[in-house]
Amino acid sequence: MTHHLHDLATPALLIDADVLHANLQTMALRHPGRHLRPHVKAHKCTALAAVQAAAGHDAFTCATPREVLGMAAAGLGADLLLANEVLDARRLRAMVEAEQRHQAMITVAVDSAATVAAAAAAGIRHVLVDVNIGLPRCGCAVDDAGSIADLARAEGMEVRGVMGYEGHLMVIADPDDPDQRAAHERQVDAAVEQLLIAHARVGGDIVSSGGTGTHHLHRRTPGVTEVQAGSYALMDSHYGAQRQPFGQACHVLGTVVSVAARHAVADVGLKALGMDHGNPTTDAGKVWFCSDEHLTFAPNRSLSVGDTIRVTPAHIDPTMAMHEVAWLVRGDDVIDHWSIDLRGW
Amino acid sequence: MTHHLHDLATPALLIDADVLHANLQTMALRHPGRHLRPHVKAHKCTALAAVQAAAGHDAFTCATPREVLGMAAAGLGADLLLANEVLDARRLRAMVEAEQRHQAMITVAVDSAATVAAAAAAGIRHVLVDVNIGLPRCGCAVDDAGSIADLARAEGMEVRGVMGYEGHLMVIADPDDPDQRAAHERQVDAAVEQLLIAHARVGGDIVSSGGTGTHHLHRRTPGVTEVQAGSYALMDSHYGAQRQPFGQACHVLGTVVSVAARHAVADVGLKALGMDHGNPTTDAGKVWFCSDEHLTFAPNRSLSVGDTIRVTPAHIDPTMAMHEVAWLVRGDDVIDHWSIDLRGW
Repeated sequence: MTHHLHDLATPALLIDADVLHANLQTMALRHPGRHLRPHVKAHKCTALAAVQAAAGHDAFTCATPREVLGMAAAGLGADLLLANEVLDARRLRAMVEAEQRHQAMITVAVDSAATVAAAAAAGIRHVLVDVNIGLPRCGCAVDDAGSIADLARAEGMEVRGVMGYEGHLMVIADPDDPDQRAAHERQVDAAVEQLLIAHARVGGDIVSSGGTGTHHLHRRTPGVTEVQAGSYALMDSHYGAQRQPFGQACHVLGTVVSVAARHAVADVGLKALGMDHGNPTTDAGKVWFCSDEHLTFAPNRSLSVGDTIRVTPAHIDPTMAMHEVAWLVRGDDVIDHWSIDLRGW
Repeated sequence: MTHHLHDLATPALLIDADVLHANLQTMALRHPGRHLRPHVKAHKCTALAAVQAAAGHDAFTCATPREVLGMAAAGLGADLLLANEVLDARRLRAMVEAEQRHQAMITVAVDSAATVAAAAAAGIRHVLVDVNIGLPRCGCAVDDAGSIADLARAEGMEVRGVMGYEGHLMVIADPDDPDQRAAHERQVDAAVEQLLIAHARVGGDIVSSGGTGTHHLHRRTPGVTEVQAGSYALMDSHYGAQRQPFGQACHVLGTVVSVAARHAVADVGLKALGMDHGNPTTDAGKVWFCSDEHLTFAPNRSLSVGDTIRVTPAHIDPTMAMHEVAWLVRGDDVIDHWSIDLRGW
């Protein structure tokens, strides 16, 4: 089905096949096999997850029940971790049913008596204790991790270990500053130390942590058994500024629909881009602002109505969630397309 | 199918039926019938558009071909304006076919020779000249509007008039300051004056302009024949700060999944909320930040895991585009559900 970029209706989500492949190879060398538990929330695409599995990583992290159910149905359910708390009995039961129907193994994060009770009532068999290691989000206090594990075991569930996400440490203000890098490393080590204290109280085989912005530090901390990175596969301008060894594999293709004296407009708006990290960038010029369906920018070259430009999202995860399909490209050739099939909850 | 809020899987998009009804009534009194051309990009929902049509407004504004095609297929195609420039021959032809199949009337915005040529080549019969009246986005210069109309007529298309969107004037920094309000009014008048100059050169019956943030000023400018407001129906915290006579009809229902000493976490994240206008708000406390699937906030009351909260989006348009369904509610009763069926491009 090879065809050309110009055949695509815009806005179109592009994945550069070679850059994706290189990113997966780079990460697989650093964290081979189950040392990486790729986070599917970053792409919401079972076809991309299958490529990650082929690169050696057959255990995955998910953020929503729908991601878990979709992965299991796609035959990618060897070891799925829902790294999130769920109270909804229907969706918890659906995961239990999916385990049986698809011969999957599903582990659910818990961080309170209420989440333990909900998981147990639904028949969930495996849990992980989610621990707050500095990011004020989900996760119990380190001191409470042991008692939550005890509650889960008393309900007959297997406690596989702990997870903790140092999401407040994913970005360094100036990644070229060696002092900032050293301070960052110390902070990550301190966060991991908290997780290991919790793990000593919880038990189990798993100490799950990290993301794209800290994956390189967890090579040095043997206590962490697996890294939950997701963005590394496709990347965005936010992580791209962090001097990570991953290339920008994802762009949104836009058509220039209007050209004025000092600005041009492409049909890639804020409904096609995750905007929480700010405006996207484009190599076609300086971005002024996004509207629902428009990107207004000052072009750095002569552009005509009908030309196409590539736009780099500032945040990959929500960007993926806005598109139905991703187009695999090599240069200007479109070589395949993947459904973004894990959207929603 | 009446059931209770607690039966909904969260995050769930809620529309308060009574507030929506009041908003539609208020606007219909100010801009009855075809004086309002509701913008469906603000809700992407044919069921909601049908209610707007029942309130007297059977001509609609759209931002994407898919919105146009969906509205036509839903029998809401009496007079559809695509207030956007399109180059894609396939989607332009699809709109021509939809006109015939669904007995619809579709008018497409043009602002350049290239967009006129694309529309003509596809068989589009009606166009409107899009004029830049101050917002640097699409729209030709006022001085070029007449020649673009001539080009379109030379291609055999009917030129129905002009449109111009004063999007840079939708918000007043301090809407309680009478000086700012007066200055705002003068700026809107000046923008409309530009549009009327263009209209004098273009001809046609339509002078289409305005939005929720300026709709009240266009009552005073008889030269504007129709207002393109969209957000007024459901509203968001951004427009809510503008002292408009419209209530907040849309919330995202979330479940509290984790409670810590100083913060709580609900399952309404940035994949469920348009984030370009910043964080959402909630009457349950002070929002700290959003993650992909989480809202971290400092609660202002005692909350337990499993409680539900209502979150008000900062920007309604992209929020709607992230959900598959909206639940109509009256108090805590769920009385209906509407498909968000106009998503995508």
